[in-house]
Amino acid sequence: MKKIGILLSGCGVKDGSEIHEAILTLLFIEQKGAKAVFMAPDVEQNQVINHLTGEKTMEKRNVLVESARIARGNIQNVRDVAASDIDGLILPGGFGAVCNLSDFASRGKNMKVNPDVKQLVHKMVSLKKPVGALCIAPATLVGAIPEISPSITVGNDITVSKTIEEMGGKHRNCAVDEIHVDEFNKLVTTPAYMIGPGIKEIAVGIEKLVDKVLSLTTG
Amino acid sequence: MKKIGILLSGCGVKDGSEIHEAILTLLFIEQKGAKAVFMAPDVEQNQVINHLTGEKTMEKRNVLVESARIARGNIQNVRDVAASDIDGLILPGGFGAVCNLSDFASRGKNMKVNPDVKQLVHKMVSLKKPVGALCIAPATLVGAIPEISPSITVGNDITVSKTIEEMGGKHRNCAVDEIHVDEFNKLVTTPAYMIGPGIKEIAVGIEKLVDKVLSLTTG
Repeated sequence: MKKIGILLSGCGVKDGSEIHEAILTLLFIEQKGAKAVFMAPDVEQNQVINHLTGEKTMEKRNVLVESARIARGNIQNVRDVAASDIDGLILPGGFGAVCNLSDFASRGKNMKVNPDVKQLVHKMVSLKKPVGALCIAPATLVGAIPEISPSITVGNDITVSKTIEEMGGKHRNCAVDEIHVDEFNKLVTTPAYMIGPGIKEIAVGIEKLVDKVLSLTTG
Repeated sequence: MKKIGILLSGCGVKDGSEIHEAILTLLFIEQKGAKAVFMAPDVEQNQVINHLTGEKTMEKRNVLVESARIARGNIQNVRDVAASDIDGLILPGGFGAVCNLSDFASRGKNMKVNPDVKQLVHKMVSLKKPVGALCIAPATLVGAIPEISPSITVGNDITVSKTIEEMGGKHRNCAVDEIHVDEFNKLVTTPAYMIGPGIKEIAVGIEKLVDKVLSLTTG
């Protein structure tokens, strides 16, 4: 049974992983006969947002602990996951993907990626194992591996796509029900809630992404 | 377009709504052409559990605010939702369904249901609008309307089913990929993670539940 890592960044679109995207990724991985392996960095969240009001709170929360809500407790520190343990890796979106897995949200092209996340992505790419990313998460992916000129999509956002090109990536526009594939680097991306408009539309692109990631695994 | 309420109880299986169940409920409602209306009570959570360790923490969190993570901010106080606003109502499971929507988890057959939840459920039943409940949530449903002798399932848990019968409900065993229907009272229940074992199995029962709830709506 193939194992596909799901790299989470908290629990909630405004300060962590986008929950719909994470659960749809899990659903399609398991429906297609593979096994999902949840992971997240064991670091403090960059911020905590009240999702009812949209306001920042003074709370402190931990990315791994909050991600465990999505994973029903079955989750590992990303530092403890070796690329040899998994056949592919997928990063759901949500603001946490660019404020907890990296600081793209605040620093743009001068971003730094969490070192454990960067190491795992590097190793996956060097082993020619596929990596998928949804929504805004491709920005962190590009920041982790700019040297291979990754070709990705975040939908059609002009500001983000310009920044990604400045970082060394290539951006391609893409519809919510489609995927963009960098066949050479085995990267698969889909816009999801960067475009929306709802769960049934993003589900179409996410199912195609999971299918493609599985088809790019070897063995 | 039919509107189906989703009544949440927080965000996470151990102290709130079971996230997979809530998202699958949303997915199937929208895929079948209806509109989901999220709601939750504006009360403090009964407890906050660290989902990585399973331990209780000293934190305070609000049920409506945490539920907003699942709803991407698009959620109402259940007190502000009238039964006339929706065509059906579904309660996902998770421990929050029996510790935030009611106190079934601690008081069993002597439970009390949150008054706003109780009022909405009562009104739905009196208007002959369908109500669905997943996992352990049927226990709270029975506590809200014991006088109509609701027939429900929580799977095959002997202790819970005995307590439900003592409260005036009828319990029927049911497989994870099936639903139990109380046609007279228009109640639809499925065991979901009371039995498990995984998201692809619970998805089958939840899709059938959403189909049945929609078919029981009028107009």
